[in-house]
Amino acid sequence: MTDSTAYNPNVRYGLTFHDATRRFQDGTDSPSQYLERCIETIAQREPEIQALAASNPSGARQAAHASTARWQTGNPLSPIDGMPIGIKDLLETRDMPTEMGCKAFKGNFPKRDNAAVWALREAGAVILAKTVTAELGGSHPGPTRNPFDTARSPGGSSSGSAAAVAAGMMPAAIGTQVAGSIIRPAAYCGNIALKPGQGAINRGERMATSMSTHGVHTNCFEDMWQVAFEIASRAGGDRGDSALAGPPTAPAAKQPKRLIVLETEGWAYVDTATRTAFEDVLKQLDAAGTALIRRDNNCTVGIFESELRGAQDLCLAITAWENRWNTRNIVNQHPDGVSERTLEILANAEAQTPADYEQMLFRRRQAQTMYHNLAEMADAIITLSCPGPAPVYVDDAPGTTPVPRPTGNPVFNCPSSLLFAPAVTVPLLAVRNLPVGIQIMGQRGDDALVTALARWMHDTLATVSIE
Amino acid sequence: MTDSTAYNPNVRYGLTFHDATRRFQDGTDSPSQYLERCIETIAQREPEIQALAASNPSGARQAAHASTARWQTGNPLSPIDGMPIGIKDLLETRDMPTEMGCKAFKGNFPKRDNAAVWALREAGAVILAKTVTAELGGSHPGPTRNPFDTARSPGGSSSGSAAAVAAGMMPAAIGTQVAGSIIRPAAYCGNIALKPGQGAINRGERMATSMSTHGVHTNCFEDMWQVAFEIASRAGGDRGDSALAGPPTAPAAKQPKRLIVLETEGWAYVDTATRTAFEDVLKQLDAAGTALIRRDNNCTVGIFESELRGAQDLCLAITAWENRWNTRNIVNQHPDGVSERTLEILANAEAQTPADYEQMLFRRRQAQTMYHNLAEMADAIITLSCPGPAPVYVDDAPGTTPVPRPTGNPVFNCPSSLLFAPAVTVPLLAVRNLPVGIQIMGQRGDDALVTALARWMHDTLATVSIE
Repeated sequence: MTDSTAYNPNVRYGLTFHDATRRFQDGTDSPSQYLERCIETIAQREPEIQALAASNPSGARQAAHASTARWQTGNPLSPIDGMPIGIKDLLETRDMPTEMGCKAFKGNFPKRDNAAVWALREAGAVILAKTVTAELGGSHPGPTRNPFDTARSPGGSSSGSAAAVAAGMMPAAIGTQVAGSIIRPAAYCGNIALKPGQGAINRGERMATSMSTHGVHTNCFEDMWQVAFEIASRAGGDRGDSALAGPPTAPAAKQPKRLIVLETEGWAYVDTATRTAFEDVLKQLDAAGTALIRRDNNCTVGIFESELRGAQDLCLAITAWENRWNTRNIVNQHPDGVSERTLEILANAEAQTPADYEQMLFRRRQAQTMYHNLAEMADAIITLSCPGPAPVYVDDAPGTTPVPRPTGNPVFNCPSSLLFAPAVTVPLLAVRNLPVGIQIMGQRGDDALVTALARWMHDTLATVSIE
Repeated sequence: MTDSTAYNPNVRYGLTFHDATRRFQDGTDSPSQYLERCIETIAQREPEIQALAASNPSGARQAAHASTARWQTGNPLSPIDGMPIGIKDLLETRDMPTEMGCKAFKGNFPKRDNAAVWALREAGAVILAKTVTAELGGSHPGPTRNPFDTARSPGGSSSGSAAAVAAGMMPAAIGTQVAGSIIRPAAYCGNIALKPGQGAINRGERMATSMSTHGVHTNCFEDMWQVAFEIASRAGGDRGDSALAGPPTAPAAKQPKRLIVLETEGWAYVDTATRTAFEDVLKQLDAAGTALIRRDNNCTVGIFESELRGAQDLCLAITAWENRWNTRNIVNQHPDGVSERTLEILANAEAQTPADYEQMLFRRRQAQTMYHNLAEMADAIITLSCPGPAPVYVDDAPGTTPVPRPTGNPVFNCPSSLLFAPAVTVPLLAVRNLPVGIQIMGQRGDDALVTALARWMHDTLATVSIE
């Protein structure tokens, strides 16, 4: 047992920003003071949590100083002007290195801004730190620990983003997800987080795979939506894709009329306590008048559940194929530059053929088409964000087989990645004193609707704690 | 006037490879001897043509030596084993620098292989040289001259690929097109060339824009198809896209039953001689029994011609938006690193908003949908590959306004880029002793069909020379 505080979903952990801006306006607070509190929290918590790959307090102080002047004269660049923010260390930043959690990229410092980072600066945000990523955005963990139990993993690959936001080091951080890298760590750390629909936020130079997205880790819906909105309204969506669409401030809470409950192949991995807690939330929804459509009462949902069997393997195999040339080039240049885990994935990818990939794309398109055809049945999907609380942090012993999934199981996250679907995680559950999230997943383009539904659940339903 | 040989479309210029492999098998020739002839031609022509950004004769000799041994034992890796090939200097190669025709990338040497380059090596091809690209694949020209009149441009941005293949320095070279960068220079240089449908060849790290493709410059259909096929069968298509589909050797020639003749907004730029030559080819098609459907006899074609008005501006503006963050980062790091032309494009892109981009994508989708709806009307589209022969090469005078379009007008090429359509250029015309190409353009996925139709035209129709 560690000295971490046991998690209580009714307590507000972390930090929010939107409520501070009123104080920036009346002069009782300022972006500079806000930033100093973040830096202080980092000084206190970082030695234990290890969420940051790099930080730039002097650059951040300069940016906060300029922001303070803008708020004082009533001319903020946006509602997130002055917001200290962390950037997952896969995205390039011109003022900090980009080491991607990978030995081969030690010291890599391209001095460029990812399009989303550029947009954040244009909106006045204060780029405070690079947050730890699992190696190359995969599953080989960095040093980061879960703020609610430092014996546990924060999840991955957006480990540092989830943990830094949970620990109150900053009110928001950018993560990325290609399989389960935003929603899972966010759920393990009690964040409110958005994985947008595919293509909704410009990935800039991070275009390597067909289903990765930038997303936002925060502690409230106001901040979550605002960060996504401010990026998308400046840098747009990915090449060829529509940008995140919706109102200029967080969508109002909206009760879902109908929700499809998806168990997915993840159901087999859910522990009894988590399952009980999830069913309790469903009972509350039912009592509030939200119709719940699931395999037990609707055979179309059953057909879709069957279609999604294998989603995890499919999602991971597509991504491995898409990454193989990049990874091969890294390994050729730096034979000891990547982990055994990454080498294993590369070997599997190199055993695949273009025809295998073609078939996988066909299966993905089939699943997407069926998902699209469910749109009329309900407002959105509800499912767990993870199979249970965060796993215990493990270090691989040198010379032994790598432990499988040290950052947790992405089985509940692969569907939204595969389906290009927006997803939001809501911290409604505490299982054995650790956060577990519930996921709302929508049709592509429905980022705002998913946010509104999740917000309603967060505002209305009782949290559930189970030992 | 220069000392270049006047172009005659009935003479075979350049070099082919597929016919040499029989001699590799019977021992009367070898990849090593073939390579030495290429190196000799380079020694003769390169000082004048300047097609190469870098070359690697020693690495090529090693690769050719290994290939020679494989042919001798009857175990070639593929039909292009031993083929010397040039790689446009936008694509990374592990054994040569990648300078992108841009001062800012002088000395850039990432020692990585683009996925297509990797596939070529796997197929036994001999990576001989990097070919000159206009700056960053745009319109600011490199030093390359047109082999058929060195006072003229070879076109761009795949300037070196088109010129090197025309001059016989190598039988094939990889180009890339985002607006008109493969088909136009190929047409100006008398190449037979393929711009595949969007996504049909894995672009590797070159994923910056939504409508760029790798393509192939050659002197015959056998080589053109084989190179594309060998890449696609190893590296597949782009992330999320289907790979080039078709037979394992060049599709047999096939007469088109029906062709839609498109004039496009390019028609206004066509000189009288080129127009007359093109109409002569149409007369031959008509006489051979191919039905020609055009705005004069079919109002649907008229509607589509109207839809395509503005295709060029749309194509260039979408690309400029998609490149803006990358270009901005380059300029921030190297204020004098790019040309005035590129700075102008950047300024225009930075004046655009995500909403402008969204609207442009909508217009592109509309054009693509209408194009798709034309599929049943004809086997393919026929149009010019360029408005006339290559323009005279101009150097900008320092301190003056940059000359517009120094590598020629891409107006006939933007439609296929915008429509994600495969296109092949056939060197059927000589206008004032210079090559002009005719373009066959198909539906996405119809790369093999377009090749078969273009091959039939090449094999069957008489070339047309006009002073």
